[in-house]
Amino acid sequence: MPSPEPIPGVRGLIIPIGGAEDKVSDRRILRNFADACGGEQARLVVIPTASELDSTGGRYVDVFRHLHVKQVDVLDITERSQAEDLHAVAILERSTGIFFTGGNQLRLSTILGGTAVAQSVRRCNARGAHVAGTSAGAAFVSEHMIAYGREGATPIAGQVTLCPGLGLTNRVIVDQHFRQRDRLGRLMTALAYNPFAIGLGLDEDTAAFIAADNQITVVGAGGITVVDVSDLAYSSMARVSEGEPVQLIGVRLHILTDGATYRLDSREATPGERA
Amino acid sequence: MPSPEPIPGVRGLIIPIGGAEDKVSDRRILRNFADACGGEQARLVVIPTASELDSTGGRYVDVFRHLHVKQVDVLDITERSQAEDLHAVAILERSTGIFFTGGNQLRLSTILGGTAVAQSVRRCNARGAHVAGTSAGAAFVSEHMIAYGREGATPIAGQVTLCPGLGLTNRVIVDQHFRQRDRLGRLMTALAYNPFAIGLGLDEDTAAFIAADNQITVVGAGGITVVDVSDLAYSSMARVSEGEPVQLIGVRLHILTDGATYRLDSREATPGERA
Repeated sequence: MPSPEPIPGVRGLIIPIGGAEDKVSDRRILRNFADACGGEQARLVVIPTASELDSTGGRYVDVFRHLHVKQVDVLDITERSQAEDLHAVAILERSTGIFFTGGNQLRLSTILGGTAVAQSVRRCNARGAHVAGTSAGAAFVSEHMIAYGREGATPIAGQVTLCPGLGLTNRVIVDQHFRQRDRLGRLMTALAYNPFAIGLGLDEDTAAFIAADNQITVVGAGGITVVDVSDLAYSSMARVSEGEPVQLIGVRLHILTDGATYRLDSREATPGERA
Repeated sequence: MPSPEPIPGVRGLIIPIGGAEDKVSDRRILRNFADACGGEQARLVVIPTASELDSTGGRYVDVFRHLHVKQVDVLDITERSQAEDLHAVAILERSTGIFFTGGNQLRLSTILGGTAVAQSVRRCNARGAHVAGTSAGAAFVSEHMIAYGREGATPIAGQVTLCPGLGLTNRVIVDQHFRQRDRLGRLMTALAYNPFAIGLGLDEDTAAFIAADNQITVVGAGGITVVDVSDLAYSSMARVSEGEPVQLIGVRLHILTDGATYRLDSREATPGERA
């Protein structure tokens, strides 16, 4: 049974989702998120800023209501001035869970970056509220966000553009729709710039539940490709020009599915019992 | 008179330098750095990893010796395995100042990122050691580093590639050789992705001395262009495609010279007495 209230002083879950999560049948990812936030007693806030469709926020309200959550608010923020609104901050401050929808991640960073709402989401996560994001929302949660990139399996210098995200963690760089859009090359490029971060390539309908102790648990129908370049024996990244292929020797990959875990601190993967 | 020892528990100065700093006549920037680190009693460490020239480290040793610093070590790290060396870490841990030379910032991030040496530099700065970097070294000190970019005065979407840097602060994005290489456009592009950071465009022979209270003091012969996009009335960044010009309404600029100060927390600039 999940606790109905976050534990004070312990960072809440950070939950990037690879996009296209099941909203109609089992709804495993959204159900796990809602349960972690307190189930019926959860106080959820949906932020549909990434989307240009008016219907996106309401669609998630319906899904969470079907999962028996009684209180779901939508913060319909489409410009920076609205993200300074103290009423919006008050709604966030009493939430147990915050959900960023998909759309365009540059709408999230350009509209919310540095505002009172962004600062409040960071505070909420630090005090224990769980923060999930799907697709563009998944890209946004970490400190280093992929803004643009090209498709393909191998790394090309300059193939990917990173920019600052919300910054709930700087330990991972997230890419979404991973298998569906052939994004291994751009994720390896992003990591090769600076090997300190771990890459998480999230397939659709698949989520990484990142706990306060930096243990990740995989939930969903697809896989998570964990890319660890910390022990590269060789990298040509600093030698090649933009547009040239990058040589990398010693990339470590794990493909993890439902129930598997990965520890960001020790870089150890464990297969799940459900695997 | 600067204190001969850093004050424990207070972050040391973070000093990005715009490149081509005076090394032969007045040497104002390097002298101010050496004095802050303890002058004759300073224990300096030069890290020439950005440079592919063997002579770069020795050149700075000579400059600092001319400035009467008795102890200057060079950590000649050219591959990742050397950056895990415990002897190198021991030298860093007793230093009062650390200096990153110029070269290629992707050599710094790809060779040092996530290693024991990078972690040690972060710890040293947190306990009070001062960390300076020139040109590539200046780009590296912050959490968000410009890896590549195109020249020109106006912003173009995708014109600049950011990647993770050393991460001593995430409050600024630094660009160097600023006036000399016409880089305002790429710095504005980098900031427009997420308006939370402040842009510092550093002319050559010009440095930003960033104190623990986030007050910046300008030292040197050129100017620092401070770019603040936090109050943008309009940004088209999330709407345009890569390669298209970006519309920004309400960018705030300050051009500051020697002795001027800027407070990152309140975003206030003050002209210097020497101006």
